[in-house]
Amino acid sequence: MTDTPVSTRRPHSAPATHDSISGNGAAPAADVEIAAQIRAVLDGRWAHVRESSRAMLDDAAFLDDPSLDLDASRRLALEQMRRLARTDWQASGFGVAAGGTGDPGGAVTGIEMLAYANLSLMVKAGVQWGLFGGAVENLGTERHHREYIAPLIRLDLLGCFAMTEIGHGSDVQNLETTATFDPGTDEIVVHTPTPSAVKDYIGGAALHARMAAVFAQLITHDADGTPLDHGVHCVLVPIRDDDGGPLPGVTTTDDGLKGGLRGVDNGRIAFDHVRVPRTNLLNRYGDIDADGRYTSPIDSRSRRFFTMLGTLIRGRISVGGSAGSAARVALEIAVRYAEQRRQFSVPGGGSGDAAAPDGGGPRRTGEVLLMDYLQHQRRLLPLLARSFALGFAQNELVSKMHDLQVAQEPDQHEQRELESRAAGLKASQTWHATRVIQECREACGGAGYMTENHLTGLKADSDVFTTFEGDNTVLTQLVAKELLTSYSDEVSEFGAVGWMRFVAETVADTVRERTAARQIIQRILDRSDETLEEGDLAERSVQLRMFEDREQHVLETAARRLRRGAPSGDGEDGEDPLAEFEAFNSVQDHVLRAGRVHIERVVLEAFLAGIDECPEGPARDLLEDVCTLYALHSIEEDKAWFMEHGRLSTERAKAVTRHVGELCTRLRPHALTLVTGFGIPRILLDSAMLDGPGTDPVRQR
Amino acid sequence: MTDTPVSTRRPHSAPATHDSISGNGAAPAADVEIAAQIRAVLDGRWAHVRESSRAMLDDAAFLDDPSLDLDASRRLALEQMRRLARTDWQASGFGVAAGGTGDPGGAVTGIEMLAYANLSLMVKAGVQWGLFGGAVENLGTERHHREYIAPLIRLDLLGCFAMTEIGHGSDVQNLETTATFDPGTDEIVVHTPTPSAVKDYIGGAALHARMAAVFAQLITHDADGTPLDHGVHCVLVPIRDDDGGPLPGVTTTDDGLKGGLRGVDNGRIAFDHVRVPRTNLLNRYGDIDADGRYTSPIDSRSRRFFTMLGTLIRGRISVGGSAGSAARVALEIAVRYAEQRRQFSVPGGGSGDAAAPDGGGPRRTGEVLLMDYLQHQRRLLPLLARSFALGFAQNELVSKMHDLQVAQEPDQHEQRELESRAAGLKASQTWHATRVIQECREACGGAGYMTENHLTGLKADSDVFTTFEGDNTVLTQLVAKELLTSYSDEVSEFGAVGWMRFVAETVADTVRERTAARQIIQRILDRSDETLEEGDLAERSVQLRMFEDREQHVLETAARRLRRGAPSGDGEDGEDPLAEFEAFNSVQDHVLRAGRVHIERVVLEAFLAGIDECPEGPARDLLEDVCTLYALHSIEEDKAWFMEHGRLSTERAKAVTRHVGELCTRLRPHALTLVTGFGIPRILLDSAMLDGPGTDPVRQR
Repeated sequence: MTDTPVSTRRPHSAPATHDSISGNGAAPAADVEIAAQIRAVLDGRWAHVRESSRAMLDDAAFLDDPSLDLDASRRLALEQMRRLARTDWQASGFGVAAGGTGDPGGAVTGIEMLAYANLSLMVKAGVQWGLFGGAVENLGTERHHREYIAPLIRLDLLGCFAMTEIGHGSDVQNLETTATFDPGTDEIVVHTPTPSAVKDYIGGAALHARMAAVFAQLITHDADGTPLDHGVHCVLVPIRDDDGGPLPGVTTTDDGLKGGLRGVDNGRIAFDHVRVPRTNLLNRYGDIDADGRYTSPIDSRSRRFFTMLGTLIRGRISVGGSAGSAARVALEIAVRYAEQRRQFSVPGGGSGDAAAPDGGGPRRTGEVLLMDYLQHQRRLLPLLARSFALGFAQNELVSKMHDLQVAQEPDQHEQRELESRAAGLKASQTWHATRVIQECREACGGAGYMTENHLTGLKADSDVFTTFEGDNTVLTQLVAKELLTSYSDEVSEFGAVGWMRFVAETVADTVRERTAARQIIQRILDRSDETLEEGDLAERSVQLRMFEDREQHVLETAARRLRRGAPSGDGEDGEDPLAEFEAFNSVQDHVLRAGRVHIERVVLEAFLAGIDECPEGPARDLLEDVCTLYALHSIEEDKAWFMEHGRLSTERAKAVTRHVGELCTRLRPHALTLVTGFGIPRILLDSAMLDGPGTDPVRQR
Repeated sequence: MTDTPVSTRRPHSAPATHDSISGNGAAPAADVEIAAQIRAVLDGRWAHVRESSRAMLDDAAFLDDPSLDLDASRRLALEQMRRLARTDWQASGFGVAAGGTGDPGGAVTGIEMLAYANLSLMVKAGVQWGLFGGAVENLGTERHHREYIAPLIRLDLLGCFAMTEIGHGSDVQNLETTATFDPGTDEIVVHTPTPSAVKDYIGGAALHARMAAVFAQLITHDADGTPLDHGVHCVLVPIRDDDGGPLPGVTTTDDGLKGGLRGVDNGRIAFDHVRVPRTNLLNRYGDIDADGRYTSPIDSRSRRFFTMLGTLIRGRISVGGSAGSAARVALEIAVRYAEQRRQFSVPGGGSGDAAAPDGGGPRRTGEVLLMDYLQHQRRLLPLLARSFALGFAQNELVSKMHDLQVAQEPDQHEQRELESRAAGLKASQTWHATRVIQECREACGGAGYMTENHLTGLKADSDVFTTFEGDNTVLTQLVAKELLTSYSDEVSEFGAVGWMRFVAETVADTVRERTAARQIIQRILDRSDETLEEGDLAERSVQLRMFEDREQHVLETAARRLRRGAPSGDGEDGEDPLAEFEAFNSVQDHVLRAGRVHIERVVLEAFLAGIDECPEGPARDLLEDVCTLYALHSIEEDKAWFMEHGRLSTERAKAVTRHVGELCTRLRPHALTLVTGFGIPRILLDSAMLDGPGTDPVRQR
């Protein structure tokens, strides 16, 4: 083992140690030029969308008003929707033929920007144009596009997306709502057969939506009258008349108050044999002809369903991106507060005898800025680094999604990989946001608890992001499942037992499959002769090898454990279902870890690809340090695993922690530059506890 | 090293493995008898207070109503206060002479119970009777008791506690507000000299309070007119007239909306040379005679201040206890939900082909209960175990506080130790609550986000508990500081530099100082011949030794690092303050760790003392398992440290994780029994998402 497991080299213009403590002096200012360069890199491929969004959102009319009651909050969100609809903002999500501009990447980026301003509005816009509009666009065919896209873009048609049921939120393949074709009238009968089949948490269902995209088991009958179940399909069902009054057979109720998102009118919908024309079936992946014959380009019911879900991936990607935005707003507020708030004139946390009694003058001179405390750096800066990492990963994901969605014949393997990445990144981003906003609230003390300083609203509104568009645990499991089966197409056909057997028979070798950063990563690895076991932890190639090696090992051992637990028979029946379940259950934490560490590797590679877009210079040097902090902090948080599996000696493990501390000290003078680099519109940071951000020339747009 | 680092012995009537999976069958029911025994042990010394509180709180009149707007929420809380005042509930906190019943332990326990029902009401009651009443009781003398205690008990006098200022929340010794004696009129002039000296976040200041207990620097003048600053004292200042109108020189403003606690009317107070009679000084620890001469039984300004703060310790203990209550409510809701909510008919997280199409019948048969998933057990059961541990630690703390507060001559060392323990446990309890409630919300999915299911309200209301009554980081540092100086009385006199030098010159040997569980612990250690390095991790003695050894090592090494960083000179001046600060700052994370691991040990010992009160039998066996889960999960969360410091081999580290998983499986059938053992009044669990809890006979009171 080397004697110096962590390099003390300082590869760039880092300030000397003393500069990192502002002590009694002024807080460091943001470096305008570097911040602008960082912003340019982080803005990425849809920088033009971000810029026009910034201009649009620099307007109090788009802000939430937390003092409003529930009804007024919902009215405000609807007014803001109409204001949005008068711009071109929402047209990018729809094809040119149907009246849009055909820029899916721009649409998702726009949602991410909207999340800086107002999460209720972001969700409401996401429901209308992303989910409802997306269902019509992607599951419907030309007749639906012609009839509905233009009105829904303009908000002449308000819709909702009725997938989740009381009984089924995660397991949507087993929804209970039925859509039964009646050949006698050429209609589809939509019905809620049980209390648990009632649609729930549906945004727009309580008040504003006039039509629902209803997901239901599609049923036809054969010549003998035997029911044929074709699995989940989507049917357009009017739920209110033009005046908002109820329609026959449709019962909506209001979910009422939630933990946040007061502007979103979530509700329940129950259908009592509601009839719609057969043509209301969104029939791109499954159709019924006038004779009642069902046809589909995809034979497998299960694969058909997952193909449909795959086309709706923008929603999940938007939620992950929006969570990233919320986290960045919180971080910028907390960093700015820590750069002006002072507490304690001397270290030690208690005695203040050093402050002379003065009979009334200010006692605040000589106190220490919060940002100068090691503990404060430790709580904020690694999260800041992770926000950068996730931001670059999100950019890469959106770019990949865009290219696949505009492709004539998208590669199916790529599509599966995209869906998996979207699932994993959604989980990472939303868990990160939950953690960051909580940490920022606490780091701002009592001021952080005041609504006027935004942090509690961000927390309340974003809290459900870990749940909707896919529960994070379920999504992480999905990532692992795909990895363990190498995105095999056959797997979606299997039940769990079949899946376990498939894993048992397949040697997973997917870890080498690289992100878009493939060449960049290879270059870094090739030019280094550092080894995994003894290399300098400050070296990028060593970090990369550690992330890769961890993923490979966790996947291989998970596959091995699943293999041991797999059934020995060759049929799916005849086994003891309880024993099957236990076999899976005993490996669940290992499987989830496989999903998590995969995403960690993907995020690191995306960060490096992002840096590669930055010209040589101080901005790039700074991003390199931020990336090292991300990588080493990620290793630090998992270092028990690295030690247990012989990947880190105890000495090297201690060095990781030491190096994270040193990086915090080194990055501390740049904290304000880094958050300024997020490019968050100034009006959104106008917290009462902060001195006017107007002193920062970058914001003087 | 032993080959079997974790015992596979099953010391009690644990169910066989298969019983732990309810699979397709019914959820396990709570064992009524065992739950009742657990409740009796957990209720502890003030069981009678808990029982009468349960009876009182089983009443919708004490519940919060989240649908109310800000004004109505505050009116409701005040009405509920008046309802409380009509009981004897609040009298226990005050001495018999002044019209109370003199039962401080009962008073704090009562607050903890109130927190089950309504956190706004708990805070408002805590401000009135705990903080304001406590200041009058503990800092005042007979004249104040006579005049104010009876009215404030009855709510004829509504008060507030004006300590925190905009500029000083944590560093309260350096408050800026002044209280200057004017011998010409025999008055004290209370003044806010700067904007940062404005009192802020003061509960009651926005609307309801008529009088404030104002903390201010007390100033007299010597014969030459030179000001003499005596440090922070408390003065009673009327802030509103009987009709709620403003008084001359007093400006109050409303803090408005917060992240939660809508019933509490927090506000700001500024004083413009407000005059009150000299006798309004709460003069127990410092008095001014008619000639303007200041006298105090305590010479040191700093020690005097910390002595005053020490008498107000109930507030901090109440907040920790209330956070514990909020966490238990969340856990019971989440466990009950997980015992009825099913999702996915087969493991694997995706395919549901096993469910036959049935054209409309319920598809929910055969689905798995959430509580049966390993991941769900992993996320809830260790937190449940920790809630038990903290509950017992809280009981021990309250008991110790009670004994010291009713003692004729409380031991000063014990008092210091109590204050440190209260600080540490407040931090642990409130961080635990923040984590638990968040985890429970996520574990309940979309339903958890609905206000009607209580979890989001618990989160919003309890969120600031990590901040008020002492920021958790500052408190944890305080714990470490006291440990590192062995509660030396001299230390409160020192500035930080003096403190570092003191540490440098003193060998800390406080870890052997035991909690009230001293004899129980010694018995466990004496009868075991297991060693720290090779012992069976399932053995209590091994766990105890690991906790102790960790604390000792962290403290010793922190002292050593502080010593290296301490100034070499012998005066407090002449040193470079920046260098001093950096020396401290570079050790801050180590110092904080010392505070945290100390509290972990204290909590484990308290858990064992609690178990010792439980008769032999299945309830005790169950608690022993819960305690093992707490201990091993605590080690698991810190196992990188244990490995880095040669306390755990990699094999033993893996065994810890394996054993935590096994304990989750073993405890899973008892989850409902355990939460039932909390004894939370039934009405408080009446969540819309839960089937009526009335099926549980323990609750059929």
